[in-house]
Amino acid sequence: MSKQRGFTVWFTGLSGAGKTTLATLLASELATRGRRVEVLDGDEVRTNLSKGLGFSKEDRDTNIRRIGYVSRLLARNRLGVIAAAISPYRSVRDEVRQAIEAEGAVFLEVFVKCPIDILAERDVKGLYKKALAGEIKEFTGVSDPYEEPFDPEVVIETDRESVGASATKIIQALEKRSLLPVSYTMLESALTDLDLATL
Amino acid sequence: MSKQRGFTVWFTGLSGAGKTTLATLLASELATRGRRVEVLDGDEVRTNLSKGLGFSKEDRDTNIRRIGYVSRLLARNRLGVIAAAISPYRSVRDEVRQAIEAEGAVFLEVFVKCPIDILAERDVKGLYKKALAGEIKEFTGVSDPYEEPFDPEVVIETDRESVGASATKIIQALEKRSLLPVSYTMLESALTDLDLATL
Repeated sequence: MSKQRGFTVWFTGLSGAGKTTLATLLASELATRGRRVEVLDGDEVRTNLSKGLGFSKEDRDTNIRRIGYVSRLLARNRLGVIAAAISPYRSVRDEVRQAIEAEGAVFLEVFVKCPIDILAERDVKGLYKKALAGEIKEFTGVSDPYEEPFDPEVVIETDRESVGASATKIIQALEKRSLLPVSYTMLESALTDLDLATL
Repeated sequence: MSKQRGFTVWFTGLSGAGKTTLATLLASELATRGRRVEVLDGDEVRTNLSKGLGFSKEDRDTNIRRIGYVSRLLARNRLGVIAAAISPYRSVRDEVRQAIEAEGAVFLEVFVKCPIDILAERDVKGLYKKALAGEIKEFTGVSDPYEEPFDPEVVIETDRESVGASATKIIQALEKRSLLPVSYTMLESALTDLDLATL
């Protein structure tokens, strides 16, 4: 356990795309696999680290850098982190990636993708309606930019797949990088695949 | 190692009292004893987490709460932290203590004490001269309050003891709480103290 590398699973995507829901399920799945992680959720972090910051590019970048700083401290101590914030600007996401990779930890960018017309239709918090009516300024995807990742490690399409299926995709990406303890189920299925007669 | 409890050694004291110097030496001593720690230094944290905050009571409290939040995330994952910020207000220090202890981690308040006339005499950064001349507003100990801890776990008198002796006092306080791996030297000295003839 203690020899494992640290990592940060970095969610990026529009408001309402499903980042927090997926982060919560993923954290719980990882815990059952023996890898407890810290979840740094955008809204919670805005309370704890970024009260007073607004939604200008500069303030958004500062907020993301702070989440990046805390992720780096945790990941360089071999811990796992899930960061879930809109993080609309590519350059700051890349800056955080570089800082974390420079510590020998893994940065896994997960694009939580959902078309904006579907988000506006769902509109769980009623924010899209207000944003489209011009009542909220600087609303990402409507009146403020969102820069999609060029080459994210994982793409989640929350309008086409279940949250369970999405979590599994991320878990597989972590397993591929040897970031999770090997489970009995995995060993068993590997052994089943072996043709014992050839041994 | 991985079963060890997390802890935060929280330095509080006036500017120039020696918090950063002691934090650096202590971190290095702890590393040689197999316990790597993260140092959250006041100045560095102001850059990474609190840019834009000033020195009003409210802003100082916010800054300390942020250091406390990060300390808590690290300590609840069984890591060791040294926080070194002036942290002039008792109530916020106590708030951070409670949050960290609530996670089952240890909070060790270290009062880094030095009389203000000696600090003004040393005046390494030339700040006391300016503060006493009224050129710096809100300077802790001169034009802004400093509330000494009522019952800190360790008191360091930087005008009377060497930095090495101070570090040793803190290490002993950590050892007393079983927060450091047992060293060969300690085992050896414990064995030497035993009267083998009585066994």
